[in-house]
Amino acid sequence: RIYNIACIPGDGIGVDITNAAIQVLNKLSSTLKTFEFDFKTYDWSSKAYLERGWYMPPDGLAQLKTHDAIYFGAVGWPAVPDHISLWSLILPIRKALNQYVNVRPTRILQGTKSPLEGCQVGDLDWVIVRENSEGEYSGQGGTSHEGFENAVATEVAVFTQVGIERIMRFAFETARARPRRKLTLVTKSNAQRHGMVLWDKVFYEVAKEYEDVETDKMLVDAMTVRMVLHPKSLDTIVATNLHADILSDLAAALSGSIGIAPSSNLDPTRKFPSMFEPIHGSAPDIAGKGIANPVGAFWSAAEMVRWLGQEKGADVLMRAVENVTARGFKTRDLGGERNTKEVTDSVCEEIEKL
Amino acid sequence: RIYNIACIPGDGIGVDITNAAIQVLNKLSSTLKTFEFDFKTYDWSSKAYLERGWYMPPDGLAQLKTHDAIYFGAVGWPAVPDHISLWSLILPIRKALNQYVNVRPTRILQGTKSPLEGCQVGDLDWVIVRENSEGEYSGQGGTSHEGFENAVATEVAVFTQVGIERIMRFAFETARARPRRKLTLVTKSNAQRHGMVLWDKVFYEVAKEYEDVETDKMLVDAMTVRMVLHPKSLDTIVATNLHADILSDLAAALSGSIGIAPSSNLDPTRKFPSMFEPIHGSAPDIAGKGIANPVGAFWSAAEMVRWLGQEKGADVLMRAVENVTARGFKTRDLGGERNTKEVTDSVCEEIEKL
Ligand SMILES: CC(C)[C@H](C(=O)O)[C@@H](O)C(=O)O
Ligand SMILES: CC(C)[C@H](C(=O)O)[C@@H](O)C(=O)O
Repeated sequence: RIYNIACIPGDGIGVDITNAAIQVLNKLSSTLKTFEFDFKTYDWSSKAYLERGWYMPPDGLAQLKTHDAIYFGAVGWPAVPDHISLWSLILPIRKALNQYVNVRPTRILQGTKSPLEGCQVGDLDWVIVRENSEGEYSGQGGTSHEGFENAVATEVAVFTQVGIERIMRFAFETARARPRRKLTLVTKSNAQRHGMVLWDKVFYEVAKEYEDVETDKMLVDAMTVRMVLHPKSLDTIVATNLHADILSDLAAALSGSIGIAPSSNLDPTRKFPSMFEPIHGSAPDIAGKGIANPVGAFWSAAEMVRWLGQEKGADVLMRAVENVTARGFKTRDLGGERNTKEVTDSVCEEIEKL
Repeated sequence: RIYNIACIPGDGIGVDITNAAIQVLNKLSSTLKTFEFDFKTYDWSSKAYLERGWYMPPDGLAQLKTHDAIYFGAVGWPAVPDHISLWSLILPIRKALNQYVNVRPTRILQGTKSPLEGCQVGDLDWVIVRENSEGEYSGQGGTSHEGFENAVATEVAVFTQVGIERIMRFAFETARARPRRKLTLVTKSNAQRHGMVLWDKVFYEVAKEYEDVETDKMLVDAMTVRMVLHPKSLDTIVATNLHADILSDLAAALSGSIGIAPSSNLDPTRKFPSMFEPIHGSAPDIAGKGIANPVGAFWSAAEMVRWLGQEKGADVLMRAVENVTARGFKTRDLGGERNTKEVTDSVCEEIEKL
């Protein structure tokens, strides 16, 4: 079976880690010999934008739809305002391809350390299910009287019954498939009294269909406290686009580094290709130095392989990654001394051995 | 000089810690003998609401305006939906009394521990300046078609030039008054492209008036990573109502417990009384057990005393609190074994000695 993968390396270390992921995925297929990848690279980036004035061509989304999956590096570069680059590339893709779920697992990998004292491998093992299509990222709102003393800007977060119901179902299914069957709802329904109140309501309606899943509810501010002080008490978490964006970065930091965390932008209807990307950004400060941590990219690649139905391939890849971190073969952000290439080559060697 | 203080103990442990704060404040005035407090207690709470149907009487805000300051415990109780209790009490007060700044200092107190490995007293010393009057807490928006499949709810965050400029000025003044003169702006202007972009713009305009203050800029998600992994790199922080709400809870957790953190809701024009409250909530699970940590309440009381112009009184109170924690005299949330009364009595004894 040959999978057609669209690769969008994007900006900065996005390029380094996408190359690393392609190398590792090719090694995986040539070793297992049960599937192959046909990668097509799209040079949609801030650099290209600065040269030619656009990120994606007019038929860009249509081109992406012809693939089985999309692998994304990172987008964002100092010379382009962030809201331009993101609303020209990553956000339109998430929206147009119906990727209404963003799954963000976090755990402490073998051989790595949490900054929390006494927090060991196994003590922090979470999956954050992020609503990925609406809410605070609806893009609605605007600015009036800009540059004058009566300037006013609004951001409109839009939440729909359909949008909330489907993310809740996905979250409950995710929780049900995990050993602890525990789902924590995060909102801010005390201060945000419209959309967040609807989130609470729909959550408890959908919960009736999942009586085998244990539930509880947190306010987003108090949730950060619980993540820091009681990491073991959490398992699966569901939150809005913005809240989950914040909590997933925190989760990555608490598990050691933002450099290890993966994300899957999923269209659960499978009508459109899903997209896989590490949660870190383009990191202009270390771009091109060859020192970026490729682990988040490999973990994202493993999630892609799993989504494509190759469970065994995904397991082999993750085991290879964790064997390498367990040996202390790590980049600087994890307290190691290896560069991107050394870690990538080691993961490839591990794959051959497994 | 006699200060007229309105006390609103509110719900749950709000009552326990307000009583503790009053005891300590009375001890402070009787010891120093340079000022006095005249406390008036308002029984505006969820319990009262359940009995009589309202939190504040129609002239409640007018009554509050007659005081020099307001001391607030906590509001929120399971039998009342949170958005009802908060929008009936704490949020209207913040708004009506022009308390557009919420100052939230955090540091590791003597004798307490950060959950972050290797993070010592002095390594985490931040002031979060929270916009307290607009943004995500504007209350605007609504719900249509509730209960039907096409239900839709919106939350409208409103940001104004006036509102942003004044919080930026306050933040720069705060940063300037601290030894490091460092201010970090937090927004999410990559995804939220209207209000957050205006925040960025106004920040850099106001920055021109404060060239002696060093500035940098973070996205709110990446900010949580920096707080966890590089706490020493931060000093003063300015963020929106919602972002700062989340970050200040995280800050409290990273400094050991949500039970120690204070907040000052300030009207910098001093036209209306300002309000002082610990950042923790009513904690129904431990309410009435006498074990709540009163440190956040004492620290809030000290900030009130400082705002009233009694610098020395504020310093004495904070030194007393820290002498007590330094001796290991702490409640359970800080890893100690003392109850509210024991900690309160010790702080009173310390005040007498200073
Ligand atoms: C790049 C940006 C739009 C993005 C987001 O906020 O969704 C990033 O922070 C993420 O977590 O994927
Ligand atoms: C009680 C609630 C409205 C409040 C807030 O979100 O402002 C609380 O979390 C706080 O931090 O003061």
